[in-house]
Amino acid sequence: MSRFDRRPTYDKILMGPGPSTVDPRVLRAMAEPAMGYFDEDFLSILSETRELLRYVFQTKNELTLAISGTGTAGMETALSNLIEPGDRVLICVHGFFGNRMVEIAQRYGAEVKVLSSPWGEPIYPDVLEKELKAFGKVKLVGIVHAETSTGVLQPLDEIARIVHESDAFLVVDAVTSLGGVEVPTDRLSLDVVYSGTQKCLSCPPGLAPITVGAKAADYIRNRAKKVGNFYLDLSIVEKYWDGGKVYHHTPSMNLIYALNEALRIVAEEGIENRWRRHELNAKALASGLEAMGLELLVKPQYRLPPLTTIKVPDGIDEAMVRKRLMSEYRLEIGAGLGELKGKIWRVGLMGSTSTARNVLTFLSAFGGILRSMGFKAHVEDGLEAAFKVLEGGCR
Amino acid sequence: MSRFDRRPTYDKILMGPGPSTVDPRVLRAMAEPAMGYFDEDFLSILSETRELLRYVFQTKNELTLAISGTGTAGMETALSNLIEPGDRVLICVHGFFGNRMVEIAQRYGAEVKVLSSPWGEPIYPDVLEKELKAFGKVKLVGIVHAETSTGVLQPLDEIARIVHESDAFLVVDAVTSLGGVEVPTDRLSLDVVYSGTQKCLSCPPGLAPITVGAKAADYIRNRAKKVGNFYLDLSIVEKYWDGGKVYHHTPSMNLIYALNEALRIVAEEGIENRWRRHELNAKALASGLEAMGLELLVKPQYRLPPLTTIKVPDGIDEAMVRKRLMSEYRLEIGAGLGELKGKIWRVGLMGSTSTARNVLTFLSAFGGILRSMGFKAHVEDGLEAAFKVLEGGCR
Repeated sequence: MSRFDRRPTYDKILMGPGPSTVDPRVLRAMAEPAMGYFDEDFLSILSETRELLRYVFQTKNELTLAISGTGTAGMETALSNLIEPGDRVLICVHGFFGNRMVEIAQRYGAEVKVLSSPWGEPIYPDVLEKELKAFGKVKLVGIVHAETSTGVLQPLDEIARIVHESDAFLVVDAVTSLGGVEVPTDRLSLDVVYSGTQKCLSCPPGLAPITVGAKAADYIRNRAKKVGNFYLDLSIVEKYWDGGKVYHHTPSMNLIYALNEALRIVAEEGIENRWRRHELNAKALASGLEAMGLELLVKPQYRLPPLTTIKVPDGIDEAMVRKRLMSEYRLEIGAGLGELKGKIWRVGLMGSTSTARNVLTFLSAFGGILRSMGFKAHVEDGLEAAFKVLEGGCR
Repeated sequence: MSRFDRRPTYDKILMGPGPSTVDPRVLRAMAEPAMGYFDEDFLSILSETRELLRYVFQTKNELTLAISGTGTAGMETALSNLIEPGDRVLICVHGFFGNRMVEIAQRYGAEVKVLSSPWGEPIYPDVLEKELKAFGKVKLVGIVHAETSTGVLQPLDEIARIVHESDAFLVVDAVTSLGGVEVPTDRLSLDVVYSGTQKCLSCPPGLAPITVGAKAADYIRNRAKKVGNFYLDLSIVEKYWDGGKVYHHTPSMNLIYALNEALRIVAEEGIENRWRRHELNAKALASGLEAMGLELLVKPQYRLPPLTTIKVPDGIDEAMVRKRLMSEYRLEIGAGLGELKGKIWRVGLMGSTSTARNVLTFLSAFGGILRSMGFKAHVEDGLEAAFKVLEGGCR
């Protein structure tokens, strides 16, 4: 089978929109042998993993577990478990993943009202309040906390207040925020929050952590009509996670080992320290980029620390820059998605990838490439600005 | 975090209904760092993986890939991509997983006709032919090739002929057969066949290989109403697998690395050799058990080599036997599922677990435990019978 012999290169710095770099401890944990899905040893790993998930979600929610699929499966779990055909829902769209929520809600028969903001901006609470009043009672409101397509961190405090006053469920996409910025599940009584593993938790992709508040859990356990799918039906999945009471499907033990170890690393660092680290490195990156002469897509107060979006300067071939970063430095960054395709770069500083070393490596490599392509990047100014932030610490 | 310090024991022989033992080569491949989902290196691994999947499925089907979920996600993919609300379908039920097909088909709005056989027996073609005539035109027929709950290998030749004469799609569950016994995708023009990775492919769980024939693929690509879910929508998923044309979700690179390596191992052994190995070891096990004085659930001509089901003798505490196998020998076997709960044991010889060594280890450990619990197991006779089969080779 000589045609199968070529091996790829794995030593890449993953500064795209995810996956982020995985700690070798996590890779080793993942490579332990699988075991039976009712094995007591495995059930105790599951139980510990739930406890650690509650810690990163900052919640006491009983219904907290990881779905056997990626972040999109988490989104579909959240929406499909709450929606019944004909339900009226309101989805906030300020990027690619808001649109995806609309698409999924429609497939489960919801009557969907869309509230849009321009890509690169957040959803504004006063607009939401007005729309909710105009549209009338909805069953749920869906919103993306960390828009991976734009780099916007959506403030949630006001949004949560407004949605709860309207008595709707609030479903929050925390795929790119969990483990990197505060996800205020209990503080704001968010009803359902889901995420992915390959972003700020720095675990390989394949699982979708999800947490469900008591009111939503109660609804899901007692809904009259069954969920529109089987694989993501939380009322059954939770019975398996609850000490292996029933068989629903064979979970990926190896991915659970990995998630468990990744969450232990988060707990060892301390979640608040981790948020501060993400904030500090993102600020260093942003200052460096601006000092170099580049423009960021998002206003400072709405920036998402794990993901920075840079406007492509006029006359620069954005794909060529990414290609050169990969071929010359084995460094991956992301392209724009959807309507921002070709207009921005997306630079991730997520989980283990969020280091001062990566900030400097990226600034110098990126600046050097831009300069050689004719853009006057002030590389030294950029590095100086980054140093200043890094030395100052966070604020 | 001292309360998180306990480590489980991993050195278990996995002779349950899956996962099976994973080759260390596969575990090492899985532990390579993740990379971007549009990375050329990753796309070439994906492309090679498809080619290898076509080999184990014995097909030339273009639409061949692995769903980012476990075997049940594969089942849901097959059914949800073909079913539209109101469609009439016929599901063959001769065990737990047939019932699951019914459940899923109903959730997507199908009008489901059930054709049952007693658990432990196959579906008989003449009965199917009669039922199909009586029920009238159906859009698809679903059947389980390898019933993991009973240990029955369903003969498919006659079934395929009858279903195709009726012009329905034939959906086949090959979760416990793929890589262990012939899955005749092209030979019998099976329309959709899906599987899991943790059975006879001896890869960790988390992916569901699936292959779709031209006629079914054409239907899926052109159906008027969108699939009832988003995560498993093959018309979009296939565009990603086709050279990364679109982003659908972030696949689990690490699980793909593992699957790729597991499939290379299958290709190195040769698929026909692998079927013969499964057959030989299963025959040795069956002969040994019968010579020891035990009774198997399934008649010889319908036995599934990867999974042997043993009737629990009167007066024996079946759970205690499993518990002792685990605590004294770190050997896992499975309990009965559904209506066979408490009545049978399920012993897997799947993929790397299908070895002469495991046959002997299990026969002696199991026989010894039964004897100590008061059942007159003829352990020496059992071992002799197994030796005879193993020495004789397959036929």
